[in-house]
Amino acid sequence: MASASRATPDKLPAWQTLKQHADELKGVHLKTLFGSESSRWANFTRHEAGLTLDLSKQRWDDDTLEHLLALAHDAGVPSAIDALLSGKRVNVSENRPALHTALRLPAEATLNVEGEDIVAGVQESLAQMERLVCRLHAGQWRGATGKPIRHVVNLGVGGSDLGPLMVTHALADYRPENIHPVEVHFASTMDGSQLADYLGRLNPETTLFVLSSKSFTTIDTLSNANTARDWLLGRLTQHSDFVSAPPVSAELIVRQHFIGVSASPEKMSEWGIAPDHQLKFWEWVGGRYSLWGTIGLPIALVVGMTHFRELLAGAHAMDRHFSEAPMEDNLPVLLALAGIWNVNFLDIRAHSILPYDGRLEYFAAYLEQLEMESNGKSVTRQGQAVNYSTCPVLWGQLGPNAQHAFYQLLHQGTQSVVCDFIAPLKRYDEVEDPDTRRHLKAQHRLALANCFAQSRVLMLGDDALDDDGPRPEHKRYRGNQPSTTVLLDTLTPATLGALIALYEHKVFVQAVIWDINPFDQWGVELGKKIATDTQGIIDGQGDITRMDASSRGLIEAFWAAEQDG
Amino acid sequence: MASASRATPDKLPAWQTLKQHADELKGVHLKTLFGSESSRWANFTRHEAGLTLDLSKQRWDDDTLEHLLALAHDAGVPSAIDALLSGKRVNVSENRPALHTALRLPAEATLNVEGEDIVAGVQESLAQMERLVCRLHAGQWRGATGKPIRHVVNLGVGGSDLGPLMVTHALADYRPENIHPVEVHFASTMDGSQLADYLGRLNPETTLFVLSSKSFTTIDTLSNANTARDWLLGRLTQHSDFVSAPPVSAELIVRQHFIGVSASPEKMSEWGIAPDHQLKFWEWVGGRYSLWGTIGLPIALVVGMTHFRELLAGAHAMDRHFSEAPMEDNLPVLLALAGIWNVNFLDIRAHSILPYDGRLEYFAAYLEQLEMESNGKSVTRQGQAVNYSTCPVLWGQLGPNAQHAFYQLLHQGTQSVVCDFIAPLKRYDEVEDPDTRRHLKAQHRLALANCFAQSRVLMLGDDALDDDGPRPEHKRYRGNQPSTTVLLDTLTPATLGALIALYEHKVFVQAVIWDINPFDQWGVELGKKIATDTQGIIDGQGDITRMDASSRGLIEAFWAAEQDG
Repeated sequence: MASASRATPDKLPAWQTLKQHADELKGVHLKTLFGSESSRWANFTRHEAGLTLDLSKQRWDDDTLEHLLALAHDAGVPSAIDALLSGKRVNVSENRPALHTALRLPAEATLNVEGEDIVAGVQESLAQMERLVCRLHAGQWRGATGKPIRHVVNLGVGGSDLGPLMVTHALADYRPENIHPVEVHFASTMDGSQLADYLGRLNPETTLFVLSSKSFTTIDTLSNANTARDWLLGRLTQHSDFVSAPPVSAELIVRQHFIGVSASPEKMSEWGIAPDHQLKFWEWVGGRYSLWGTIGLPIALVVGMTHFRELLAGAHAMDRHFSEAPMEDNLPVLLALAGIWNVNFLDIRAHSILPYDGRLEYFAAYLEQLEMESNGKSVTRQGQAVNYSTCPVLWGQLGPNAQHAFYQLLHQGTQSVVCDFIAPLKRYDEVEDPDTRRHLKAQHRLALANCFAQSRVLMLGDDALDDDGPRPEHKRYRGNQPSTTVLLDTLTPATLGALIALYEHKVFVQAVIWDINPFDQWGVELGKKIATDTQGIIDGQGDITRMDASSRGLIEAFWAAEQDG
Repeated sequence: MASASRATPDKLPAWQTLKQHADELKGVHLKTLFGSESSRWANFTRHEAGLTLDLSKQRWDDDTLEHLLALAHDAGVPSAIDALLSGKRVNVSENRPALHTALRLPAEATLNVEGEDIVAGVQESLAQMERLVCRLHAGQWRGATGKPIRHVVNLGVGGSDLGPLMVTHALADYRPENIHPVEVHFASTMDGSQLADYLGRLNPETTLFVLSSKSFTTIDTLSNANTARDWLLGRLTQHSDFVSAPPVSAELIVRQHFIGVSASPEKMSEWGIAPDHQLKFWEWVGGRYSLWGTIGLPIALVVGMTHFRELLAGAHAMDRHFSEAPMEDNLPVLLALAGIWNVNFLDIRAHSILPYDGRLEYFAAYLEQLEMESNGKSVTRQGQAVNYSTCPVLWGQLGPNAQHAFYQLLHQGTQSVVCDFIAPLKRYDEVEDPDTRRHLKAQHRLALANCFAQSRVLMLGDDALDDDGPRPEHKRYRGNQPSTTVLLDTLTPATLGALIALYEHKVFVQAVIWDINPFDQWGVELGKKIATDTQGIIDGQGDITRMDASSRGLIEAFWAAEQDG
């Protein structure tokens, strides 16, 4: 990590050079940058770990990249990468390392952090997870009444939800065969909506809940857990459909129907999780970087441990590349620099994530957390307020669907947006029925054609049309909108692992350049405290007159509704 | 609608007044605006059609609102509302009215548009939809082999997907009892992902597909439809599990397993949809405003026609309010003006939609289309380029989940964002089991406490904390972020209808002020054409050398992958 005394990025010479350079480039349309340069594809495209990164449609040229690389160098990116991967305390406000990359080190590796090799512990936690997965996949995990578990509901929110949800959806084709079937579900939202739906549908005898919470104090998850526990106890000890002779005990129910995943074994034990059903991880794994370890239990339950280990191996391949490749060939560094250029020099404050593969339906939601929770900051690591933009607003949707929704704004709106297009090159080779395979492969080709066409239109605007005759203004397209395309050779556990790691490291490099800490999240802490205060007042245990007129009005409206009946 | 010769909004006197006024207010923190004014709640809150709209946490004062109302008046909002609701050709680039409000007029109403009463036709299409719904709910709709239909898959994208998906999810508690069970599914994405999943799970004998496409030329939907048709034909005529003696004909299969919903009966007939299984609608219904008519078939299948008509009635209540209420009490007008103030005078270009109710999971995605496809425009109705901002980037997520994801950026990032908080006041009264009800009602109260707390923290920042002692910079919160809160008395078909109509009309009012046409979407047309060209080139039927280096590189990468195996 750069030393504490480094200058903020806007004081670095390369930043000033980039400012001037941006003024020169501002009037140049992206299509002009492309011009006749047939080398542009080769110059701005890199391939690694099953991914092709095409940055040629960014609104930049060779000089821009050179200046940006100088900025990265001056900001200390190379030493910061070393600091991250070697376990230095890069999370300065919480005074600890951020060691998610250690979760995907090979079993034979060693990593000494402050005098201790942490790989052995990581491997032991994976082995413990594997034992639980094997019991469930063998149909040997039985509920309190003796029936094998069929449904697993993951109770978690934020990092304990988004990663596992995204990956299980993306890799659903990789379910192992010949196992006892276990369906995995997710309930995250604190209002109980998703959980209420499952409680209405699932059989309590064969349903197991996974409580995932790093601190094991997350009220969203614990309130869902309490509702689930009382539902199980009520059904299995009192309901005539299930009550057996001899009756099952509450202890047995909690023991057999709950697994805990947390960095706090004490709190898991307090809640009642049996010690051998506790999966642990470490304070040095951030919630939004935690799918690689025990928080990934739902992933392993869906795809099996072999595929889960392939996911880790894919991420590790990207980690090695990140560690070893020179900056000018380093995918995460290049992706990060494109972002810096757009946010800080072209003033593009919105970023859209557009996968052209339905399996990546939750990828944008995943990145929304990864990027905005990491880099939605405005104080440097030394506690100074920044006077430059950091993380843009990031959102997305499956690309083909977004074409029928918000692409209108991308093509003809007044806001500047940069887009990431993501697609696999090959697909559907494993579909058995030949007719269905032919149809689905054609649909994949259609999706790719749309993906490539959209980035082209965003770049060229009207010029993408052969016939550029007179048209009314409302049928004109300015183009000049930059984009990145990321191609996966195919979507596999390994390439998905590499893709996620690519974005993780991109976020890190940007944080280094912006001189902010991507590993804390103080912005969410205040909200938690105030929510508790507010709930007290709603429950009549506080002084509502201290509140502002709006909060008072809202709470009084709730009270009135409650009294209504 | 304002006459063709009206000035663009930035030339109106009220716009200039607002500019000056914004300069004066810019340095005033939102908490100061609240100050001791206990009347602020009453001044900036309105109740209508089961909705409470709290605009007191916008960064404005009484004068701001007065100037904004003057702007709305000068921009011709009142006459534009009349023009919309009376069926004038407000969609100027396509020279037709936009009559989604006619779809929710009561049966006994009349609306003469260009000499014709259109209510009778609307009611007849609802009656036809009702007959199909009744057949399915009675178990009388049988597949080609004689078994009652159990699964309905809606094939549609954009407006033919997002509205029905959002509403069926929101109103899943309103399923009628004592009907033949019919499960409704959605497949939208052109790459076949969702469809492939259903084809692997559903029984072809008892599955019916609804093809929803206004033009019936949407390639996303038609390619899914062709895959589905060939799957049905293959399974039901050749597969040993299903083939019966005598064998069923292809005609019977297409007849019994497909319903079409479109404005083009000719194209539905060409595709093979039986005439009595065609549900029609009109060119004057925009795709993103179409859930109120036959495109709403999946909604009616889930909640029944009685609840569907309540949804319409709720929207109609908002239409009447929009038509009749004075501007200063008119919910859609006020919500629109808050948006104009934020975008054009406070330069806030991002807008987050945050429901605190899991049933509204798809509401943000729905609004992304409604707002960005409608108002992501940069040309006035007279064909002039605008020199002011129009639609902001709009995105969202369930609020409690977003608290664990991107709220960090809202509280401590460098981008300005305005938020809409949405929540029902009452919930879970109908849960039967008393223990589960008590738990779930507590979870609802927890969600409300968080909702109210977050808007308060966004407003007050550090001042929301009692103890404001010395804290490091990374634990400080600037506040001053404006928000709107929309409360539903309860979430019912009627209040959901009113909520959607509120946003529809908000979008319209903003379009009037910005002098843009919210009812066309030329920005998506170019993309469609280029996609077809690109697919030709991918299939080897075009000249790839005409393309830019990036598009060439991407297509060649695809060709190489295909050859690989």
